[in-house]
Amino acid sequence: MTDSLATIYGIGVGPGDPLLLTLRGAAVLREVGAVLAPRSAEDRDSLALAIARPHLPADCAVLEAVFPMTEQRAVLEQAWEDAARELIAVAAAGRPAAFLTLGDAMLYSTWSYLLAAVLRLRPDATVVTVPGITAMSACAAAVGQPLAEGRAPLLIWPDEPPASLDALTALAPNIVFMKAARHLDALADAVETLGADAVAVRRCSLPDQAVTRDLRAWEAGRSYFTTVLVHVDPTPPTPSPAGRGGEKESK
Amino acid sequence: MTDSLATIYGIGVGPGDPLLLTLRGAAVLREVGAVLAPRSAEDRDSLALAIARPHLPADCAVLEAVFPMTEQRAVLEQAWEDAARELIAVAAAGRPAAFLTLGDAMLYSTWSYLLAAVLRLRPDATVVTVPGITAMSACAAAVGQPLAEGRAPLLIWPDEPPASLDALTALAPNIVFMKAARHLDALADAVETLGADAVAVRRCSLPDQAVTRDLRAWEAGRSYFTTVLVHVDPTPPTPSPAGRGGEKESK
Repeated sequence: MTDSLATIYGIGVGPGDPLLLTLRGAAVLREVGAVLAPRSAEDRDSLALAIARPHLPADCAVLEAVFPMTEQRAVLEQAWEDAARELIAVAAAGRPAAFLTLGDAMLYSTWSYLLAAVLRLRPDATVVTVPGITAMSACAAAVGQPLAEGRAPLLIWPDEPPASLDALTALAPNIVFMKAARHLDALADAVETLGADAVAVRRCSLPDQAVTRDLRAWEAGRSYFTTVLVHVDPTPPTPSPAGRGGEKESK
Repeated sequence: MTDSLATIYGIGVGPGDPLLLTLRGAAVLREVGAVLAPRSAEDRDSLALAIARPHLPADCAVLEAVFPMTEQRAVLEQAWEDAARELIAVAAAGRPAAFLTLGDAMLYSTWSYLLAAVLRLRPDATVVTVPGITAMSACAAAVGQPLAEGRAPLLIWPDEPPASLDALTALAPNIVFMKAARHLDALADAVETLGADAVAVRRCSLPDQAVTRDLRAWEAGRSYFTTVLVHVDPTPPTPSPAGRGGEKESK
């Protein structure tokens, strides 16, 4: 194992709109010898692959990885190791390889497990992560409503919501519920109890994007990318003025 | 006020690396008649403007807005309204106008206030937000460490940290402290008490990016973009398998 490896990339390709790929992501894709994308269920084309494809060299190999729908750690570890070996094989043959991931590569992404698996197998590997646009940023843009302002914290909740949101909103008046498709009725109940503002977005940034403030209007459990933004106080908080916190530049 | 307006954009230009602009951000910038950027302190070039400049048409006007360093709501409201009027004037003359913001346009950005000010002045305006790469995504990529995995929530804290992080970590084992330059010593104390893993990144994605796990090594209060990632349990949590939560596609 003394051969040097080409770089192995994890690329966040954004939430779905092909134009929400970064210039850096596109530049990396133009140089790769292979891309590895999670294989999607139900014979659909992989969305991450569709975003990447226009940028790939003509001779780029397209590999697909299957990550089983289980929480058994040993089974998943094996799947990550298998995928890591595929990336390493491409890099060992002298060309960069890239794993494609929807959204950002470091936020609830398989990439962080793969990255670790690559480095376990080849501690000498050069592994580079290219960040991507998160679904929540695209959802906030779509509804024209900030994720958070001023000094108010933001909580990102990727799991089933608790029956009461009180403990959550006591800490953070802004909450993003990710992968919320199965929890829309529970969220509707919790949000009504709070008197909070809530908006749900599914398939954000895609041509069939949909937005609703009636969370019960969508059939629960439907297999869509669904994000719910909750704000307990819809009046604007005290803003953080330019330069606060020791930054030289406002944004 | 019956003239139709060209589109007014708020564009998140990412954390600093010009290549972390999106393809969509670059495409919009190629069409604008004017950009408005927050004027930076200390006579530095605006970083947001530097990122945008290579994409601007030759005849594009470059406007600068000053957002005073105050928490007085009335003063800030006036500044936002003045900036909104500048954007509206460009759009009324028939060309799209864009406000530039570092990071994402909907996460602790002046854009959310400007957007509201534009719509107060011209409810008929077409206002479009283009999401951007957040500093936290770029920081996680830089240190090769996920923001969050599996079912574990993520808390984003833009303000002074509390003396004890117990209430925060009880809810979310992953915390991002933004604009943390002035709070590094306090964070070091809190993190040591917890026995948590912490890493600080400043000027993320820029040529002089720096990373440290010794939070006290950096002079507190230095005017840098500084983000601190804290994880209370550095062992990997139970992963979310592909397809969990009703999504059709793993990422």
